[in-house]
Amino acid sequence: MPTFRLTVAYDGTGFVGWQRQPSGTSIQGLLEDALGALDGREVVVTGAGRTDAGVHAIGQVAGVSLERVIDGPTLARAVNARLPEAVRVTEASEAPPAFHARFNARSKTYRYRIWNGEVLSPFERAYVWHVAAPPLDVEAMARAALVFEGRHDFAAFQAAGSETRTTERTVSSSRVSRAPDAPLIICEISGNGFLRHMVRNIAGTLAEVGRGHHPVAWVEEVLASRARARAGPTAPPEGLFLVRVDYE
Amino acid sequence: MPTFRLTVAYDGTGFVGWQRQPSGTSIQGLLEDALGALDGREVVVTGAGRTDAGVHAIGQVAGVSLERVIDGPTLARAVNARLPEAVRVTEASEAPPAFHARFNARSKTYRYRIWNGEVLSPFERAYVWHVAAPPLDVEAMARAALVFEGRHDFAAFQAAGSETRTTERTVSSSRVSRAPDAPLIICEISGNGFLRHMVRNIAGTLAEVGRGHHPVAWVEEVLASRARARAGPTAPPEGLFLVRVDYE
Repeated sequence: MPTFRLTVAYDGTGFVGWQRQPSGTSIQGLLEDALGALDGREVVVTGAGRTDAGVHAIGQVAGVSLERVIDGPTLARAVNARLPEAVRVTEASEAPPAFHARFNARSKTYRYRIWNGEVLSPFERAYVWHVAAPPLDVEAMARAALVFEGRHDFAAFQAAGSETRTTERTVSSSRVSRAPDAPLIICEISGNGFLRHMVRNIAGTLAEVGRGHHPVAWVEEVLASRARARAGPTAPPEGLFLVRVDYE
Repeated sequence: MPTFRLTVAYDGTGFVGWQRQPSGTSIQGLLEDALGALDGREVVVTGAGRTDAGVHAIGQVAGVSLERVIDGPTLARAVNARLPEAVRVTEASEAPPAFHARFNARSKTYRYRIWNGEVLSPFERAYVWHVAAPPLDVEAMARAALVFEGRHDFAAFQAAGSETRTTERTVSSSRVSRAPDAPLIICEISGNGFLRHMVRNIAGTLAEVGRGHHPVAWVEEVLASRARARAGPTAPPEGLFLVRVDYE
């Protein structure tokens, strides 16, 4: 039974998120239905990251075992023919039998996009968090973002009510930059694992620094406090993209 | 009664086009309703270009006369508060009383976007024409595009059944280029006026050259023939953007 690794891009607008839910349309559900129809049986699709409702992906990675023997490009075409245009398999290839999209992931990269202009572009409205004028202090946000690099206990940035065995994670890179041709601020963060809402809580916290409500040192204090109540608000899902998953 | 010039951006998806229609939602209708509510009376909004259903705009220009005395930025904010997010006034300023958005336009620039990759990005699906593999010959398309520059009779590129007094137009620039970071081909054309479907018919014709179905010289023959039946198909509306309108 060959195992496949799929790279998946999706516009998360209107979906209930990656994970199959009792009601609503999920990306996992769409993929399981499309792949199950191809394989003539029920299949289980595992994803590298469980993106929330409304969150997008450029390079989500999914794993599936099929009975059917098929080459990667043909599989990608066949699955895409059974998916809505909002979800696309951009690449498919055979993986080692033991491949697990989540457990084998070495690093994930997320991007959070903030539109910091007074007038929100109609073409960006589903893909950014609109933080209108005044202009955010991007340099301060970039300095604050560096606070997250390294191994830390990210309990302060976990969704309220989460139950996780450990809240320690390693962030290998956390950068903030300005897009060259639009009033767009990009927060990009890579790490070995992310807690629920962690990137959105980090983005909400960085925006507080950008607004001048708090200095960079406050971010260090919030991180050290491990108290969710001390961090900034959870930024909305539509600004978030799962960009890439790296494996050994 | 002050006259205003508005720059308007819109995602044309799901609208019946610029012009008010007996049924369906038009951009002109939305603007007339929003501006009319502000002015406490019915107002008439004129647009520089009558974009078709599904066509987008980055820099449409509209003119309106109001009884109310108001400054441009305040007007833009007030109108945007009454418009859906798919339509945004990006700029508003007082214009000379005789200003007419269409008659005074010296030049308009349209962009037509072709996605020439096998897998269409979910984020581009409403903003491109998907012409899947094999790769188009962009260099041949660029040479063919130059055929349109200058003053010509564009009857071969007019929508079938159109009745226009004259089909002569001057195209000041017609270029085709490749986007640096995506399998995207951009056709950009500027001119003093455009016939109905002219840019979409030009894009459909350039794609025929890109596919290798016809040589560049064929485009010259089609243009000279003035016969709609000889040109390529009408490219779909979702790839078209009204980018800019220039005035004296």
